[in-house]
Amino acid sequence: MARSQRNTAPPRHPDVAELDLLDILHALSDRTRMTIVRTLWTGPERVCGTFPVDVAPSTLSHHFRVLREAGLIHQRDEGTKRWTSLRRNDIEARFPGLVGHIVDAFERA
Amino acid sequence: MARSQRNTAPPRHPDVAELDLLDILHALSDRTRMTIVRTLWTGPERVCGTFPVDVAPSTLSHHFRVLREAGLIHQRDEGTKRWTSLRRNDIEARFPGLVGHIVDAFERA
Repeated sequence: MARSQRNTAPPRHPDVAELDLLDILHALSDRTRMTIVRTLWTGPERVCGTFPVDVAPSTLSHHFRVLREAGLIHQRDEGTKRWTSLRRNDIEARFPGLVGHIVDAFERA
Repeated sequence: MARSQRNTAPPRHPDVAELDLLDILHALSDRTRMTIVRTLWTGPERVCGTFPVDVAPSTLSHHFRVLREAGLIHQRDEGTKRWTSLRRNDIEARFPGLVGHIVDAFERA
């Protein structure tokens, strides 16, 4: 399906069994994406424009896509808004303790 | 200094205080580089051609450089051989438990 045809489709999310460690490490190796994950780690679902990051909307969309394709976040559309949450239970089921350890290290650094 | 002039200089290594979490995650987000780190995690210093990876020498040099610049490995030249070891004590001092946790997750995956 062409990319333009998918723009209004709901975002796709990988299954828990598909979560890949190298994809997750790559997703977390960027300051903006790590900040998004850290913000969601201890907080509730948020609307996309409310994260404490300073990047252009198109750049932010790219970062959300990388995080979503790595299985770190879940996104759902409600009217004109896209809500983002962390797939914390799924991540813990697949890689127990891993992302929490990384987020802790980021906060201490 | 031009790159060509540095080819025979000993490899440079960042100080412990310079080790950056995002650089380390990026370095570990590649299967070849993760395999190198996993091999060194439980083993001694090795000569460069002896790692269980299947990539061209120029590609391997690139991967070693990424790992070295992230502070994960130490390299030293002895005659015509380059020996590589893990900077395990330095990594543990800067990010206690982190890389071990990631290596464990890679082995279980």
